[in-house]
Amino acid sequence: MNRIELIGVEGLPEILAGDDLGDLISARAALAAGDVLVVAQKVVSKSEGRLVDLDTVTAGEEAVEIAARLIAAPDPRAVQVVLDESVRVVRSERVLITETRHGFICANGGVDHSNVGGRNLLSLLPEDPDASAERLRSRLQQLAGVDVGVIVSDTFGRPWRIGIVNVALGVAGLPATLDLRGTVDDAGESLHATVLAVADDIAAAAGIVMGKTARIPAVIVRGLHLEGASTGRDLIRPVAEDLFR
Amino acid sequence: MNRIELIGVEGLPEILAGDDLGDLISARAALAAGDVLVVAQKVVSKSEGRLVDLDTVTAGEEAVEIAARLIAAPDPRAVQVVLDESVRVVRSERVLITETRHGFICANGGVDHSNVGGRNLLSLLPEDPDASAERLRSRLQQLAGVDVGVIVSDTFGRPWRIGIVNVALGVAGLPATLDLRGTVDDAGESLHATVLAVADDIAAAAGIVMGKTARIPAVIVRGLHLEGASTGRDLIRPVAEDLFR
Repeated sequence: MNRIELIGVEGLPEILAGDDLGDLISARAALAAGDVLVVAQKVVSKSEGRLVDLDTVTAGEEAVEIAARLIAAPDPRAVQVVLDESVRVVRSERVLITETRHGFICANGGVDHSNVGGRNLLSLLPEDPDASAERLRSRLQQLAGVDVGVIVSDTFGRPWRIGIVNVALGVAGLPATLDLRGTVDDAGESLHATVLAVADDIAAAAGIVMGKTARIPAVIVRGLHLEGASTGRDLIRPVAEDLFR
Repeated sequence: MNRIELIGVEGLPEILAGDDLGDLISARAALAAGDVLVVAQKVVSKSEGRLVDLDTVTAGEEAVEIAARLIAAPDPRAVQVVLDESVRVVRSERVLITETRHGFICANGGVDHSNVGGRNLLSLLPEDPDASAERLRSRLQQLAGVDVGVIVSDTFGRPWRIGIVNVALGVAGLPATLDLRGTVDDAGESLHATVLAVADDIAAAAGIVMGKTARIPAVIVRGLHLEGASTGRDLIRPVAEDLFR
């Protein structure tokens, strides 16, 4: 893994519900066996029709109360959409941080209104990002004839640190983590507590290329030589081990 | 930024206090203008002599108490070293998470005992990672005649998510964040709350190549085309804006 390439997939059109992402991507990218394709959640959600029109939403009491506390003064209906996607409100002072039904803890439950082509449309996270990743992986295998890994990524904020970074929500065909516990370091000492979130490192790498305004929602990561496979679910820390929920 | 290369710097020797990292790296890497060099904190700390011999440390009462609560049952003297590096204990159930003098919130105050060539030696974070990055940047400019950016990185755990990722502690010669607030997305809508932690994304990308056991503590990131410069300090969220401290 001492030389890795990040290649943005250019020229993708605006993605609409029902679009065949695998087809659109494989037509624009020369995928090779062992590549990992990182795809932004937003285009996956759009292709899956995971959009909500605010005009179809009625804000409940909790949504109205929370909206009044937030800095951005959002439409209470948008807060209602966030609550509908969430199982728990983690913070609702200044910003709204919730735990989604998948177990992700993030701002606004992953609900977003940018880049969805209309002011009243909100995008939701995919129902099951691991399944989305696996479907795209199968489709790419079918179309391009090569075995690739797929990560469905999104940008998350972090406690303590400024700014958002790209992380892996859904993972298929590659390991989400590299467990080095029990291995020894260069001095022969046990690396006793080290699990690398390699899918998050890969998503972050792709995030450099994706930027935020450029229309590059898919990035090929080449040269990884990873073995095994797990899921994005493996990156979610169980509640019992979590000190900050 | 649609094609980026990550190139591991191979063949670096075990780093010792007083070693000229810039010289060792530039002798093994063909740096080009605009490259960003990501260097693991561990080798920077070693070259700066930021090591503590446990045999010179006496554990105080707080360190003894905390050590008894932690899963890893550490040597209380190691906990003392962590406390000496820290301004605040954030969590001390199961694991020890502190705020360092720099403002980083991380496990064990960045104190680590792996890869330092001896069981009784602990490595500390650099005194001032931004200054370390700037010194290395100047030295590389002097030796290689090219202007590069430098990131001093370390692997941090995260609340809510499993595993560690590489983040930027010190930054010189590149922007730590890209502030997209006020810019518009592809649909013409304001991206009102988006600051990308680009130096963290770059550090994470380098983390894929660094792995943990391979002796590749330095990675060249080529093709970024970033403008401007700031510091790693800019990635630390001010206490007043922090909901999880």
